[in-house]
Amino acid sequence: MIVSIIGLGLMGGSMALSLRQKLKPSILLGVEKKLEHADIAIKLGIVDRVCSLEEAIDKSDVIVLALPVNDNDKYITSILDGVKESSVIFDMGSTKESICSITKNHANRKQFVATHPIAGTEHSGPEAAFDLLFKNKLCIICDKEKSSPKAIELVENIYEKIGMNIIEMDSSRHDKHIAYVSHISHISSFALGHTVLEIEKDQQAIFNMAGSGFASTVRLAKSSSKTWVPIFRQNSDNILMALNKYIENLEYFRDKIESKSFDDLDKYILRSNDIKRVLEGIKKK
Amino acid sequence: MIVSIIGLGLMGGSMALSLRQKLKPSILLGVEKKLEHADIAIKLGIVDRVCSLEEAIDKSDVIVLALPVNDNDKYITSILDGVKESSVIFDMGSTKESICSITKNHANRKQFVATHPIAGTEHSGPEAAFDLLFKNKLCIICDKEKSSPKAIELVENIYEKIGMNIIEMDSSRHDKHIAYVSHISHISSFALGHTVLEIEKDQQAIFNMAGSGFASTVRLAKSSSKTWVPIFRQNSDNILMALNKYIENLEYFRDKIESKSFDDLDKYILRSNDIKRVLEGIKKK
Repeated sequence: MIVSIIGLGLMGGSMALSLRQKLKPSILLGVEKKLEHADIAIKLGIVDRVCSLEEAIDKSDVIVLALPVNDNDKYITSILDGVKESSVIFDMGSTKESICSITKNHANRKQFVATHPIAGTEHSGPEAAFDLLFKNKLCIICDKEKSSPKAIELVENIYEKIGMNIIEMDSSRHDKHIAYVSHISHISSFALGHTVLEIEKDQQAIFNMAGSGFASTVRLAKSSSKTWVPIFRQNSDNILMALNKYIENLEYFRDKIESKSFDDLDKYILRSNDIKRVLEGIKKK
Repeated sequence: MIVSIIGLGLMGGSMALSLRQKLKPSILLGVEKKLEHADIAIKLGIVDRVCSLEEAIDKSDVIVLALPVNDNDKYITSILDGVKESSVIFDMGSTKESICSITKNHANRKQFVATHPIAGTEHSGPEAAFDLLFKNKLCIICDKEKSSPKAIELVENIYEKIGMNIIEMDSSRHDKHIAYVSHISHISSFALGHTVLEIEKDQQAIFNMAGSGFASTVRLAKSSSKTWVPIFRQNSDNILMALNKYIENLEYFRDKIESKSFDDLDKYILRSNDIKRVLEGIKKK
């Protein structure tokens, strides 16, 4: 089985490393525009060889699209135009409505599976890739009915082999939910990092005083703009809704401090503590 | 040496466990109003015995104040009123201006050392205590010149023995800085937890889709209101300043998404990425 990974960053690189271990493809090809990333990917043994997109389309049994979401959208049509009849393509993007809409009426839509493996770190590039990134995480397959049973079977088999749990979801519902549990977390972190850098001229003090609490809430602020700006662009309607609610919540908190309504803050925090129960998956009382 | 810990929660309990290992006091007494916490602390071997505040003041060579900051303020004066001439008292609160101001003119001020060991988790109570909480973390001693050299030496020796790095800071500067690197992180997390719970009626979806990014930004939302509301109350001026800046930053982000000014967002994220360099303590280019 010949597998090609389009985009050798954190996600594509980690998928290549996982597939090499668990799927043992005969050839693992990579497509990567950035020469530096291509060199690192070869040196680290992430792929066997870097080739052109055309060669990848021509030769591969499985094509993995692991570019920023706007680039996935840019290439998916020409990939579907050119693939062999037996090939399967899947993407790994954090938004799903856009790519599902672009491919909706394509003659070869059935060969494409829209997926979102919910895994990542704040680091980027092939040097950040590792083979256990996906293990015990969740993968969402969207608009499953648009893909052929054969394609679904192959992709599910791959995700299962690399240790992921799979659920299905409509692409529009996916984008709405993910705005709250992923996209807004990133915005919260970017804004927090920025705020602190802006006001704290005494940068040594930040470094000295930053406890693990700050480090954990600001961790995502290290994430790449090349990955995230296209996501914010594609999912802007859902994100604006979530972000406005988040700002309203912060304003409520601010107003309660300002008016010294500390009993209300106490109640607010108790409600917020409930996230613990939800994250632990305990059923609502 | 007889040591008393006033308040057997996460902080006091962890201090007791650390001191037992590293200072080997002859008796470790605990003062704890909550009977349940007192029982757990005895069962877990956190302290030898639970006693009244009066007995602790009467017998102890070292008294550690590990209550919520408003309660530290409430008891510090009577403790200083009653202590033996040779005793040393230190607190572990996350705000320092208030307790330093309350004690400023006390006849026994020299026996008190105002400290903030920057360590903690989102959990609370004696069952959350552990002996390595403070290891390799930072402890800030405030208004050092108000304490006697003997008291400072004893307290520094304790913090060094349990593995902390010590820096000094004026209490007012401490409260300003800590608003940005700790207090605002907690507010950001409480508000995020609340926002998601408020909008996402489909709680199973949060549980399923919450990646490690969400879990890490929302971790602090599990923190106790009993600890945090008094902190928000005491440090409200600094927090309001920081929180308003944070809200402005989020509004900027929102406006850029709304007006589709994605190049500006790209620049904003690149500046925010700089937090990585600061957190790693690398000097400014």
